Amino acid sequence: MYRLVKLKEEKVFKDPIHGYIHINDQLIWDLINTPEFQRLRRIRQLGMTYFTFHGAEHSRFNHSLGVYELMRRVLSHFRRNYALELQDDEVALGLCAALLHDVGHAPFSHSMEHALHMKHEIWSRKIIESSNGISTILNAFKPGFAKEVSSVIANEHPNKLIESLISSQLDVDRMDYLLRDAYYTGVNYGNFDLERVLRIMRPHPKLESIKNDPNTPKVVLKFSGWHAVEDFIVSRYQMFWQIYFHPVTRSAEVLLGKIFKRAQDLARSNYTFSFMLEPLDDLIMNNVITVEQYLRMDESFMQTVFYQWMDEKDVVLSDLCRRLINRDLFKYQVLPADEKESKRICIEMEQLLRQKGFDPEYYMETDYPKDTAYHVYEVNGPLIKTPIAAIDNQDHLIEISNLSVIVKSLGEKKSVGATNLYVPELKNNEVYER
Amino acid sequence: MYRLVKLKEEKVFKDPIHGYIHINDQLIWDLINTPEFQRLRRIRQLGMTYFTFHGAEHSRFNHSLGVYELMRRVLSHFRRNYALELQDDEVALGLCAALLHDVGHAPFSHSMEHALHMKHEIWSRKIIESSNGISTILNAFKPGFAKEVSSVIANEHPNKLIESLISSQLDVDRMDYLLRDAYYTGVNYGNFDLERVLRIMRPHPKLESIKNDPNTPKVVLKFSGWHAVEDFIVSRYQMFWQIYFHPVTRSAEVLLGKIFKRAQDLARSNYTFSFMLEPLDDLIMNNVITVEQYLRMDESFMQTVFYQWMDEKDVVLSDLCRRLINRDLFKYQVLPADEKESKRICIEMEQLLRQKGFDPEYYMETDYPKDTAYHVYEVNGPLIKTPIAAIDNQDHLIEISNLSVIVKSLGEKKSVGATNLYVPELKNNEVYER
Amino acid sequence: MYRLVKLKEEKVFKDPIHGYIHINDQLIWDLINTPEFQRLRRIRQLGMTYFTFHGAEHSRFNHSLGVYELMRRVLSHFRRNYALELQDDEVALGLCAALLHDVGHAPFSHSMEHALHMKHEIWSRKIIESSNGISTILNAFKPGFAKEVSSVIANEHPNKLIESLISSQLDVDRMDYLLRDAYYTGVNYGNFDLERVLRIMRPHPKLESIKNDPNTPKVVLKFSGWHAVEDFIVSRYQMFWQIYFHPVTRSAEVLLGKIFKRAQDLARSNYTFSFMLEPLDDLIMNNVITVEQYLRMDESFMQTVFYQWMDEKDVVLSDLCRRLINRDLFKYQVLPADEKESKRICIEMEQLLRQKGFDPEYYMETDYPKDTAYHVYEVNGPLIKTPIAAIDNQDHLIEISNLSVIVKSLGEKKSVGATNLYVPELKNNEVYER
Amino acid sequence: MYRLVKLKEEKVFKDPIHGYIHINDQLIWDLINTPEFQRLRRIRQLGMTYFTFHGAEHSRFNHSLGVYELMRRVLSHFRRNYALELQDDEVALGLCAALLHDVGHAPFSHSMEHALHMKHEIWSRKIIESSNGISTILNAFKPGFAKEVSSVIANEHPNKLIESLISSQLDVDRMDYLLRDAYYTGVNYGNFDLERVLRIMRPHPKLESIKNDPNTPKVVLKFSGWHAVEDFIVSRYQMFWQIYFHPVTRSAEVLLGKIFKRAQDLARSNYTFSFMLEPLDDLIMNNVITVEQYLRMDESFMQTVFYQWMDEKDVVLSDLCRRLINRDLFKYQVLPADEKESKRICIEMEQLLRQKGFDPEYYMETDYPKDTAYHVYEVNGPLIKTPIAAIDNQDHLIEISNLSVIVKSLGEKKSVGATNLYVPELKNNEVYER
Repeated sequence: MYRLVKLKEEKVFKDPIHGYIHINDQLIWDLINTPEFQRLRRIRQLGMTYFTFHGAEHSRFNHSLGVYELMRRVLSHFRRNYALELQDDEVALGLCAALLHDVGHAPFSHSMEHALHMKHEIWSRKIIESSNGISTILNAFKPGFAKEVSSVIANEHPNKLIESLISSQLDVDRMDYLLRDAYYTGVNYGNFDLERVLRIMRPHPKLESIKNDPNTPKVVLKFSGWHAVEDFIVSRYQMFWQIYFHPVTRSAEVLLGKIFKRAQDLARSNYTFSFMLEPLDDLIMNNVITVEQYLRMDESFMQTVFYQWMDEKDVVLSDLCRRLINRDLFKYQVLPADEKESKRICIEMEQLLRQKGFDPEYYMETDYPKDTAYHVYEVNGPLIKTPIAAIDNQDHLIEISNLSVIVKSLGEKKSVGATNLYVPELKNNEVYER
Repeated sequence: MYRLVKLKEEKVFKDPIHGYIHINDQLIWDLINTPEFQRLRRIRQLGMTYFTFHGAEHSRFNHSLGVYELMRRVLSHFRRNYALELQDDEVALGLCAALLHDVGHAPFSHSMEHALHMKHEIWSRKIIESSNGISTILNAFKPGFAKEVSSVIANEHPNKLIESLISSQLDVDRMDYLLRDAYYTGVNYGNFDLERVLRIMRPHPKLESIKNDPNTPKVVLKFSGWHAVEDFIVSRYQMFWQIYFHPVTRSAEVLLGKIFKRAQDLARSNYTFSFMLEPLDDLIMNNVITVEQYLRMDESFMQTVFYQWMDEKDVVLSDLCRRLINRDLFKYQVLPADEKESKRICIEMEQLLRQKGFDPEYYMETDYPKDTAYHVYEVNGPLIKTPIAAIDNQDHLIEISNLSVIVKSLGEKKSVGATNLYVPELKNNEVYER
Repeated sequence: MYRLVKLKEEKVFKDPIHGYIHINDQLIWDLINTPEFQRLRRIRQLGMTYFTFHGAEHSRFNHSLGVYELMRRVLSHFRRNYALELQDDEVALGLCAALLHDVGHAPFSHSMEHALHMKHEIWSRKIIESSNGISTILNAFKPGFAKEVSSVIANEHPNKLIESLISSQLDVDRMDYLLRDAYYTGVNYGNFDLERVLRIMRPHPKLESIKNDPNTPKVVLKFSGWHAVEDFIVSRYQMFWQIYFHPVTRSAEVLLGKIFKRAQDLARSNYTFSFMLEPLDDLIMNNVITVEQYLRMDESFMQTVFYQWMDEKDVVLSDLCRRLINRDLFKYQVLPADEKESKRICIEMEQLLRQKGFDPEYYMETDYPKDTAYHVYEVNGPLIKTPIAAIDNQDHLIEISNLSVIVKSLGEKKSVGATNLYVPELKNNEVYER
Repeated sequence: MYRLVKLKEEKVFKDPIHGYIHINDQLIWDLINTPEFQRLRRIRQLGMTYFTFHGAEHSRFNHSLGVYELMRRVLSHFRRNYALELQDDEVALGLCAALLHDVGHAPFSHSMEHALHMKHEIWSRKIIESSNGISTILNAFKPGFAKEVSSVIANEHPNKLIESLISSQLDVDRMDYLLRDAYYTGVNYGNFDLERVLRIMRPHPKLESIKNDPNTPKVVLKFSGWHAVEDFIVSRYQMFWQIYFHPVTRSAEVLLGKIFKRAQDLARSNYTFSFMLEPLDDLIMNNVITVEQYLRMDESFMQTVFYQWMDEKDVVLSDLCRRLINRDLFKYQVLPADEKESKRICIEMEQLLRQKGFDPEYYMETDYPKDTAYHVYEVNGPLIKTPIAAIDNQDHLIEISNLSVIVKSLGEKKSVGATNLYVPELKNNEVYER
């Protein structure tokens, strides 16, 4: 009924990760050309990571195209090789949700979201449902389609196959970002055999009968290929510990949090900023802004604000901003596992900072990075994520942690890593060395 | 006499192109940490190219570290394998000039420089000689050293070996940018065998006696390896035509030029901008700013200005800015070689634009990209660039265009390419397709 | 009428160059599993090159699968994007001819062919037409099909589109070997943008009307992409000069030729070899052998013969074989361009060799490598190869040397390179150094 | 005392893995040019693996150069950055042992060794100690040096630092083969960050005092880099399961074993082979051969024997050889974990084979691949391999399985994998599909 209009000639984007991004549908082309999507060119994919790995300057625009391309390939693969029947609007649902899943990211993504209690998923949904460009185009394709796409991102759509391709433990989002982030940072930890993983993925052979069972994966793996997915999971684990949790990056994020905190505290005490750009004032004061306002903020916007704030009369704010702009970051030290000892060190450090004229509220932070690379499915426990499973010749599913001792060990991992204490470099202070 | 102080432990930057950038000297480490050098993180290496190749979001910071690293390797290679004797201050001269050669780049490099008649080489020199951070550090190493480093960039230093490594037809600048730009755009045209090129480079065996002869290269090639340099020259030629001259990128640059032109025209007619950031006003009005002012401008700064100007009451300025921010670029068509016919088309287009309400002064541009991949040395002609030459067993130099028919053909190339006409997309207008 | 039977499940070969080789047809699978095709695992792709570049140990089996895969992709691309209508037997013709085009290669390919006046193209045809495995399978698919496939390789088939994809100046054979040989040797000269070249290739839009015109290419290029093909041509030129013509490899080939010459001379003088394997005796004596006999010879066979011949009582033969097995190659020196001077050197060398006890007939050789990377089409001259041409919006063809000064210069190149003189290392003899 | 004589000019081998292999010492150059070392060009690195992964045609020559190059880099790194003092003869010991560690490999390595009860380590020692070429060169450098080099390979040399670099859980042998085998097969499982692993390796800071303690590693890791070694261990684990244990490769090895078994049984029953090459007869009959005889055997030798044996009158031997030459391998099926059930299947299969005319002794085999990717050090248990450990700021060693849950899980792994049953393809027999 709802037909995807093909472009006269296929358009391509040259992409370092996937070779080419292929665009065949007018709908996708139009979405890419909206101001809302073009804004993603001004949001970095990895926030502050470029302070640690200078190559990591790539944008969410990059990644969003990549996720779209992988979705396109998976759906095409499922249709060609497994006779999966998909209507045009189901294909469109997958492609659009993949393309737009990150459209609501704030500048410096997680840091700013955390500081200002914004969730990018919520903003993605708002933008998809009510922005001038995107929602209009989606609803022109099919009435109510914007809402549908948005519900996929919220995991509330009935099509769980499409949903799980976008957001699960083996989704096209993760596949793209591991490869892409590895490429731009220049490390090779994120590399896994994408082509093989795509080859061994297939829709569950009894898709219809299990479609409402949240614990049964909609996409399963050819048995003989499970090692490729084990490798994917290890890649993700490695990227978290080597890149995403890097203490120098966290240090920059700590600084960002402190800047927002100081700005909010000043705003609440009726401080008059000598430089301000709308809607940051509303955001800081009231935390209530519209979609149009939200979209005005990108990383150029924030960076300009921080730059101008280096001239603010408030010395804390101007100093913190100077540190961020010039990469004069806090240094860190690892706190001991012993809680009492750890507390003692923190208290001493607070005193030392005060002696040196630093207010610990703005110049000290502890940080404990953690993630579980793969959440193992627990039969009787609370559901976290649909498990990854291989399927044997008799159509039995075997959960991957039952095949791989590595995945099992990562799934069991409850708390690894250490707490870091961040403070400005002081005389005799321990200095981080890469 | 002037000794480079070593760092306690080598520091490294993970780099996608060179694996690691190695820093052993306190001097280099201190320079990298200056606000002036950190500013290069906010200047893209390829200006507007990211509108065509979305991967090209890498910064001058990236490239500058790479050029430094290559200089470090070449000097080390020359000392180890050719017993080139270099004092510490000569090594420092090479390393610092390599690191800082691009420190004066303006936002969106060439476009803004062109529009506002600024030359980045001049600003690089000013920043090196008189910025708070960099010049202080350089002169602390050795009195007058800032001036020395600056003179290398100006090709006015007596050490022509160091100079030619930074700026010649086979310099570490070109080597880095070809590989780096190829990597980030995702094309492979820029790839050449860096390791082999470095291996076959050697100082002229009679360096002392030819050091003042501008026509004799200070660095020569092992004869049996000249094909590797031929390949390097072809790579550069390919990158120019495939990447640097890409008509979509030029379209964005045309737009940028039009924005500056409109802003200047408005300023001269006493228009009051509703948004302005210092020192852009001074720059537009008087074209006279200080080093401190200059350094305030980065790409966040300019992008914020353009974003805010979308709300300007002047419809031309706001429309041009909207086009740039949202990537609603001018389309292009190739003009015929016949000059009369070409002129006729332009005149017709001007009329058409006026009919549609576009002022051709701000909405139409012709552009003729050209470059000569390799300037062949001309014995009796005006000197352009020191030639590249291989050296045989009897220490005779053979200029590379006498070895390679390809280089010869590229050197002869006077005018290839076509003139493009850029205008906004009009109804029935020819649309560019990648 | 003749239908390709699909395999139940696609089979793949993991390939370093193309990721995966995809086999979907029973016909192709059966051909790969014939003894005649498996024999290609025992013939190296680059003959003696592994003595110079140790990585170049890959086999013709490798390359043949790669050529098949590229043919598969091109045909699929033409059908999907240009609605090229191909019957199953036309597709089979292309795939089989691609897979089998090198099936007649002798051990150490060109050297042995040259020494014994065999042509691998002729043997390929014989094997396709009359071997037990291959011809039976082909004719079972369609009566007379073996002959058809063979005629494609002989450039005598009416389907010139298929023919030109296998053998022209822009064919899948060249595409595969450039990338593959570059990969295994470890150089990057052979790299070009395969994906882009495939994207811009398309069947001539008026294929029907030009199908009998030998001067009009059946496959043309999208105009905007011609630089990618220019790069392909340069890659081939570089590979010839850097790899295929490498003087150390030629030295090993000279040795091989000398061994065959000595063995023939001995055989003709009724020498009794203490070791001989059938059919080498027939081949050396009579130069007449059957297909079955021919197929017995692979590189293991020849290497074993040479190894055993190290124990022959004929000192010349045993010495030459020892040199080949232990890589004690002849050294080379470049002869001057001046013919008289060159002749003088050769005569002197002959005398010197005789003094040292070496018979110049078996211990001296001159070699002049040459190739023209791209044969430009000559309107009034003898046809060499169908030209490469781009097609513009008005369906006009522009021959690529009219677009590229590089291709033009390579096409004009008549004689570059030098003659090398090969002799055993003597005291005071010039030694080659890589 | 014993000085390494430098070459006039460095020689290099272009290598796909390490870029270039650098040779600076006459000693190394001479060793490479011995017939014994050149023989490694005729022994494949991965035996029968090329039947599964067609790219895996690379030789031991390749790998041996790579191991040498890594040893060269590690020693140079230790001397430059950790002031490790090494005499020339210690450096030579490391370089020679690295270069020669695999010189005794038999054709098709492990399979032939297993079938004929030969150990390549023992033959390596014999060749180093008593071959014409190698031992002469080594002892000319320093009297008794051949014995010294040999004792490193036997783990009997007092210099445990050098020994552990060649043979430990983190040695240059493993580093090279993981990267190299991944490259030639075309998979990416074997990739790890070589440069970073080399960077974080350092000699134990109290080398002198711990040099006789077998449980203390002589080479330790910078603490902050242990994740890179974790990745190395996972790479090895992946390569074992994906490449080295691949059931199709094992099938070819089973066939090889059966051929040797049949040949031995025939020889013992006084069968007269119509084709035989010395010293295979001695080897099969008596299993006693000299070093000179051993060196005559390479893969060309064996392949020629198998080829000629296709014409033997013994139908079992000729059929098995035909299968190997033409890659008509046994198929496999996975046996159930339940031992009784597994036994039942084997007995049934034996009967079936007999019915079909196949003697199970030569046409049936079970195979259980296993390896432990990393042997965790056990304090009270029997020593297997020196553990890998990171060193913290206080010079405390932390064994890597105490840092990495993954390594811990791999270390604990006692038995993973399944037993496969190999038999010829029968009607209705389960066919392996990649």
